[in-house]
Amino acid sequence: MFQTTISPRVNETNYTGHICNTSIPIWLEKAREPIVRMVHPETAPGGKSFILARTEIDFQSQMFFGEDVEVKTYVVNLGRTSMTVEQEIWQQGKITATCKAVMVYFDYDNQTSIELTPQIKSAFEIHGRALG
Amino acid sequence: MFQTTISPRVNETNYTGHICNTSIPIWLEKAREPIVRMVHPETAPGGKSFILARTEIDFQSQMFFGEDVEVKTYVVNLGRTSMTVEQEIWQQGKITATCKAVMVYFDYDNQTSIELTPQIKSAFEIHGRALG
Amino acid sequence: MFQTTISPRVNETNYTGHICNTSIPIWLEKAREPIVRMVHPETAPGGKSFILARTEIDFQSQMFFGEDVEVKTYVVNLGRTSMTVEQEIWQQGKITATCKAVMVYFDYDNQTSIELTPQIKSAFEIHGRALG
Amino acid sequence: MFQTTISPRVNETNYTGHICNTSIPIWLEKAREPIVRMVHPETAPGGKSFILARTEIDFQSQMFFGEDVEVKTYVVNLGRTSMTVEQEIWQQGKITATCKAVMVYFDYDNQTSIELTPQIKSAFEIHGRALG
Repeated sequence: MFQTTISPRVNETNYTGHICNTSIPIWLEKAREPIVRMVHPETAPGGKSFILARTEIDFQSQMFFGEDVEVKTYVVNLGRTSMTVEQEIWQQGKITATCKAVMVYFDYDNQTSIELTPQIKSAFEIHGRALG
Repeated sequence: MFQTTISPRVNETNYTGHICNTSIPIWLEKAREPIVRMVHPETAPGGKSFILARTEIDFQSQMFFGEDVEVKTYVVNLGRTSMTVEQEIWQQGKITATCKAVMVYFDYDNQTSIELTPQIKSAFEIHGRALG
Repeated sequence: MFQTTISPRVNETNYTGHICNTSIPIWLEKAREPIVRMVHPETAPGGKSFILARTEIDFQSQMFFGEDVEVKTYVVNLGRTSMTVEQEIWQQGKITATCKAVMVYFDYDNQTSIELTPQIKSAFEIHGRALG
Repeated sequence: MFQTTISPRVNETNYTGHICNTSIPIWLEKAREPIVRMVHPETAPGGKSFILARTEIDFQSQMFFGEDVEVKTYVVNLGRTSMTVEQEIWQQGKITATCKAVMVYFDYDNQTSIELTPQIKSAFEIHGRALG
């Protein structure tokens, strides 16, 4: 499990006084960043990296400015060319949003998806839900 | 069907040269705005409005700065207290992303979901996929 | 003068019910985009383009969701290697924010500022404040 | 002096591979948040708070994804109804952007600027540049 703390920003709220739903994917991406950096430590584009293919987000309850949120990210499936993660956003002791995201391992130079290597699979296996 | 044209912004790209995946929910929300405004024409919060409960987004192909995108939004289900829409983002003649979004009709004052009225249902029926 | 219409987005508001001050630089950049595209029509990075060196923004009155804004951009100075523009944001018939921005003509390949050519100067002269 | 660490996000870069200029005001606002919270600890709008009246930003050198930035915020003037701060963004040991921001103390309920109290002035005096 990967854990990331985010401090909500004023511009991430909207006129209802709550966090914008559009801020959530930004937080979720920030929380997946350690995963991407493990396979693509360079900060320049190109090479091989994970690209986002699909997200399902459930907005379960309102989030607020003024309290940090915790994002927990679990690796739940390691496919042939993709990885599935489940993410939870917690604020004030409860889950406020959940996400399932599919990331495809992608070769930018050849513009094609590629197979996860055994090394990659083994590196991520310990981040599953059971192991925390 | 509701149609919205969006002109991508420089800050909506990322360092791979493509549109950020996190820009897409912002465009999709902009394209759902006519739906929200139909039930909540005021621009102040409060009263009764749609709130976003769930999104599923498939990122199908890369999008680029420098070309407008079209977002098409279809009402595909009118439930008891919620509405489901399907959205397509088009750029350069092809679909680049799709979304299914569930919006719940919500009473901010009482903080509870409420039933869609027959008037609301009938107003949205013509925006289904078959009728365009 | 360059003129750009922007339709405020829900996520560009904040919890006071007004447009976030951080949304304004995004709108101002969108309104300077025609200037950048005149010297750098490609949408890939590299080559020669304007980069932003300095901005001064006065937030004069509150802006709101629900009404389009107009951004007017005037070229007010053409220097040796830079251009200065003044920008006004209008909403509901009054100026709500002003900006002075300095953009430097920059050669990405050599990572250095470069001189504005006579052709560039002449192309922008007609966009001064007097001529509208 | 107030100090804030920001970890740049992928969506804060743009297609040139650098941090977007439009990300900088968001970071600067985050770094001014402790100032606002000192006079307006509630997280709901209304009451008395600082609102941003003017910013001057110099973009001195490129910033990159992959390295944290530090934002240092100094109170440089306490006026009758406003405060001026100077901010520096540091990345990899050098200043990459500077900002001077004027914030007005504002009564939302009466929609008017109000005088800084002696208590407020004294609370902020220790955050001047000399004292660090």
